[in-house]
Amino acid sequence: MAGDKSPISGNPIRCKAAICRKPGEPLVIEEILVAPPNRHEVRIRIICTSLCHSDIIFWKLKDFPAVFPRILGHEAIGVVESVGEDVDQVKEGDVVIPTFMSDCGECIDCKSKKSNLCSKLPFKVSPWMPRYESSRFTDLNGEVLYHFLFVSSFSEYTVVDIAHLTKIDPSIPPNRACLLSCGVSTGVGAAWRTANVESGSTVAIFGLGSIGLAVAEGARLCGAARIIGIDMNPDKFEIGKKFGVTDFVNTGDCGSKSVSQVINEMTGGGADYCFECIGLASLVQEAYSCCRKGWGKTIVLGVDKPGAKLSLSSFDVLHHGKILTGSLFGGIKAKSDIPTLLKRYMDKELHLDEFVTHEMNFEDINKAFDLLIQGKCLRCVIWMHNEQSQLVTSA
Amino acid sequence: MAGDKSPISGNPIRCKAAICRKPGEPLVIEEILVAPPNRHEVRIRIICTSLCHSDIIFWKLKDFPAVFPRILGHEAIGVVESVGEDVDQVKEGDVVIPTFMSDCGECIDCKSKKSNLCSKLPFKVSPWMPRYESSRFTDLNGEVLYHFLFVSSFSEYTVVDIAHLTKIDPSIPPNRACLLSCGVSTGVGAAWRTANVESGSTVAIFGLGSIGLAVAEGARLCGAARIIGIDMNPDKFEIGKKFGVTDFVNTGDCGSKSVSQVINEMTGGGADYCFECIGLASLVQEAYSCCRKGWGKTIVLGVDKPGAKLSLSSFDVLHHGKILTGSLFGGIKAKSDIPTLLKRYMDKELHLDEFVTHEMNFEDINKAFDLLIQGKCLRCVIWMHNEQSQLVTSA
Repeated sequence: MAGDKSPISGNPIRCKAAICRKPGEPLVIEEILVAPPNRHEVRIRIICTSLCHSDIIFWKLKDFPAVFPRILGHEAIGVVESVGEDVDQVKEGDVVIPTFMSDCGECIDCKSKKSNLCSKLPFKVSPWMPRYESSRFTDLNGEVLYHFLFVSSFSEYTVVDIAHLTKIDPSIPPNRACLLSCGVSTGVGAAWRTANVESGSTVAIFGLGSIGLAVAEGARLCGAARIIGIDMNPDKFEIGKKFGVTDFVNTGDCGSKSVSQVINEMTGGGADYCFECIGLASLVQEAYSCCRKGWGKTIVLGVDKPGAKLSLSSFDVLHHGKILTGSLFGGIKAKSDIPTLLKRYMDKELHLDEFVTHEMNFEDINKAFDLLIQGKCLRCVIWMHNEQSQLVTSA
Repeated sequence: MAGDKSPISGNPIRCKAAICRKPGEPLVIEEILVAPPNRHEVRIRIICTSLCHSDIIFWKLKDFPAVFPRILGHEAIGVVESVGEDVDQVKEGDVVIPTFMSDCGECIDCKSKKSNLCSKLPFKVSPWMPRYESSRFTDLNGEVLYHFLFVSSFSEYTVVDIAHLTKIDPSIPPNRACLLSCGVSTGVGAAWRTANVESGSTVAIFGLGSIGLAVAEGARLCGAARIIGIDMNPDKFEIGKKFGVTDFVNTGDCGSKSVSQVINEMTGGGADYCFECIGLASLVQEAYSCCRKGWGKTIVLGVDKPGAKLSLSSFDVLHHGKILTGSLFGGIKAKSDIPTLLKRYMDKELHLDEFVTHEMNFEDINKAFDLLIQGKCLRCVIWMHNEQSQLVTSA
C-alpha cells in the first residue's frame, strides 16, 4: 500500500512476546522483532496488561477472524518509546493507554458528542495495523505475527496508531489505569455515557462478570438508588456489593417465573435501565421485557455468536415506548473520557482496586488464562518487565 | 362494579349515532340514548370528527378485540354538555378534544416528563369506559352499544373520561383542531417528542400516509434539513412537499437494491432518524438498517398484526449504537402538548389545513370510509350537526 512506503525511522526492537501459535494452546513466550512506528504510529513499551474475555475468545477461536500466529492482548498501559511521522499528541516517555476503539478526533463521529464510533478508523477485528494492511511484528525466523484489536499488548513492546492511544497522568498506578483500556471503561461507560443513568433510578444487570460489575460501578457513580445483579452464581452477590449491587436475583431460584417476571415484580413494573452483559439474544429479550414502559432503556453489551438474531414483539416495541440500544466500549470517547475516569479514581470516587484480583509476571501469562477461564478472577494484571511483582490472592 | 354505583345526575340524551353493527358493513345512523356522565366523566356534544385508519381496522375486524354493535370514531372535537362528579377541569360550554390516550396528571408516568403512557388508565382496546366496565350508550331497544378507544365520536353526543379530555382555546377552527385528537399529534409528536429531531438533521419516513406526512410536518417544524419520504405511490411526493418532504424514494424504483441501501447511499451512511409508519416488521428492519450508526434513531409508529416479531442482528445492535424505540400517540402528553401544537397552528407554524382533503355531513359518513379505504383522502372531517357543511374536493 502507498501508505506503507512512508519513511520509517529507528530500528526494530528485539523483545519478548507471548505468541498464540495455535487456537487453544498455551501462549509461547518468544523473542520477536518489533518494527519502528510508521506514519501516525507510536511504539510503546508495555508496563502492564490485563486479561479480558475477548482475549480468551480469540485464543480459542479456530476460524476467521481468528488468525495465527498472533499476539493477543488489548487491555494495557505503556510508555512511549518512539513516535512515527505526523505524531504530535505524544512524545517519548509519555504514559499512554491503548484502546481497541479509535478516537481520531477528526471525523464526524469523533467530533460529535453523540458517537464514539470513529468513522475514519472504524472498529473491526483486523490482523493488521488500522491504517495499513501490515504488521509490525516478526518472529526471529522472519514470519509475520498478526496484530489483535490494534493493540497486541502481550508483548514487551508494541506499535499502536496514535488514534488508538490516550495520554494519561503518569502518577496514576499503572496496574489500575490499565483497566480503563477496555473492560472497566466498557461497563462504567455503558451506565455513564450510553445509558446516562439518572440519580435515584433502578438498574438491572444481567451477568455479574467484570463487565457487569463495571456497569454496577458506573451506575453507583451515577447515583442509582437500586442496582439489581442477575447471575446464576450466588457468590457474585458478595462481589457485586463492592460495586454497588444492592439486590441479587439468582437465575436458578426463579422457579416457574422468568427472570423478567421476577424483576418486574421486584421493581413494580420494571427497571429504568437493563444491561445485558452476557451475549445471549434470549437474555436481551428478557432484559427488554423487564425494563420500564415509557422510558426504560435496554443496553446490549454482550457479544453474541455471529449471525445471532434478536427477536422482539412488534406490539411491545410500539406500545411500551422502551428504548433498545447497544454500547460498544461503553460509548466512551477514549481521549476525553479515560482521563476523566482516571481523575475520579484518584479522587477516590471510582473503584478500580476491587477489580484486580490477581497480579503476576509475564512468564506466568498462561496461568492468567486459566484463572479467567475458571471464573476465578475478575482482572489479572500482568507486569511485563518485573518492575513490580505483587501476587494478590484470589478475592 | 362499585364505581358504577356513584350517583348519576342528569337525564339521558336522545341523539343520532352511526353504529357499526357488523364488521365491514356500512354504518347505520340510528337514534340512541347517551347516559349522563358518571363520576370523573364528561358528556360532550361532538362538533366534528375525522376518520383515522384505526376506525377502518376495527370496522373490518371480525374477531376480538372487535365487538359489535359499536360506536367507532376517536378523532374529534366537542363542547362540554354536562359533567359528572369530581370533574373540575372543565365546565359546560368548554371546547374539548378527546384522546384515546389518558393524561390523568396524577400517576408516575403522567407526572414524568419522559412518558406519555398513563399508568392509572392505561391504553387498551376496551369496549367500555376507562374506569368502569360499562357503556353509556344504548339503542332504542335497550341494547348496549360498545365504546371505542374511550372516545366513540361517531355520535352527536358521547361520554368521555376527564383524563381523556383536553380543554382548548375555543377560537380555533374545530375542523382543524380535531386533527390533533389522534393522527396529526401522533406523527408530529413522534418527530417532536419521541425522536426530538435536531435542527439540520436528516429524516427518513417509511410510508407517506397521514401519519407519515404528519411526521414530516413535525420534522419540518423541528428544523430538519432533509426529509426523505419513502412510498410505493409516486403521487405522495407532491403531497409530501406540502409538509416539508424534500426527497422521495419510490420503493418500486430501487431495482436490485434494498430501500435501506438506497437511503444509505443518498445520505452517506444513513438518516439521523427513521420513522416506520406502515406497520410491517420487515420495514422496521429496513429502517433500522439505514439509520446512522452512532446516534441514529428508528421510531416505530406503524401497527403490525398481532404476534408479529421484529428481528434484528445482535451484532448490529451491539456494534452500531443505534436506538430503536416505539411511539404511541407520538409521545404526546395530551393536556400540555395539544394546546402547544394548536398555538403553533394559530401562529401559522404548524400546517393543519393541508391535511383536510374532504369535509362532509354526518349523513355521509360511509362515503368518508370509502374515500379513506380508496386512499383518496388524508383527512375527511365530518360535521355532526350541520353547523357548517363545506365539501372540499380531493387534493
